[in-house]
Amino acid sequence: MTLSFGQISFDSTNPLPLAQWWAEQVGGKIVAENEGWFVVVATEKRPWLAFQKVEDPTPGKNRIHLDFGSNDPKADVERLIAAGASHVADHDMGGFAWTVLADPEGNQFCVASAE
Amino acid sequence: MTLSFGQISFDSTNPLPLAQWWAEQVGGKIVAENEGWFVVVATEKRPWLAFQKVEDPTPGKNRIHLDFGSNDPKADVERLIAAGASHVADHDMGGFAWTVLADPEGNQFCVASAE
Repeated sequence: MTLSFGQISFDSTNPLPLAQWWAEQVGGKIVAENEGWFVVVATEKRPWLAFQKVEDPTPGKNRIHLDFGSNDPKADVERLIAAGASHVADHDMGGFAWTVLADPEGNQFCVASAE
Repeated sequence: MTLSFGQISFDSTNPLPLAQWWAEQVGGKIVAENEGWFVVVATEKRPWLAFQKVEDPTPGKNRIHLDFGSNDPKADVERLIAAGASHVADHDMGGFAWTVLADPEGNQFCVASAE
C-alpha cells in the first residue's frame, strides 16, 4: 500500500479566486497557479487543496465534501459566514452537532467540534 | 484558525459496501457504521473517509475529487483496477503524469507519483 493523500481538488470555472478564498479560510498559501488551470493551496499537512479549471462543473450538491473539525465551531462558523460562506443547515444527531456551509461557488462543507 | 481536516465524505445510496471498498484500497478500517447512514473509515492520519447515505446522489462527475500520491503509480493503478476501479483517462502535462480512475460508484479520483 503506497497511496497517500496528495490533494483534494475542486472543479471550478474560475479557480484562482476560489483558491484564494479557501487559502484564507484554512490558513493555506497558494504555491502554484499554473496559469489558472490548476491552482494549488498548500496547507500545513497533506492533503493540500487544488482548484482546476473546467468548462462545465457538475451542477447541484457536490457528491463529495469536506468535514472540518474545529476547537470553536461557533466562532469558526461565524468567521466563515463573514468571509462569504453561505449557511445551509444546522444538524444535531444524538448530541453530535454540525453546521453545513457552502463556499462562494456553492460547494458544501461541514464544521463540527474537533474530536 | 482552528479548522482541521476531519474527513472527506462521499454521498452514496449504499454506504457500507463503498466504505469497505475504500477501506481496502487505502489500508483503512471501518470504525463506525452508524446503522449504515454514516460509515467512517479511519486511516493512519486525518482526514479519514466517510460515506453517508443519501436518497439521490448528484449524478455525473463528482465536482470535488481526491488526488493520491503513490510511490509506484503503475502498480497502484493496476491493483486498483483489479479491485474494481474503472480506468477513465491517462494524462501527461509537461512531464507530470496522472491516471484518472473511478470507484465502483463512479466517483473519479487520480493517482500520480508522490512528490
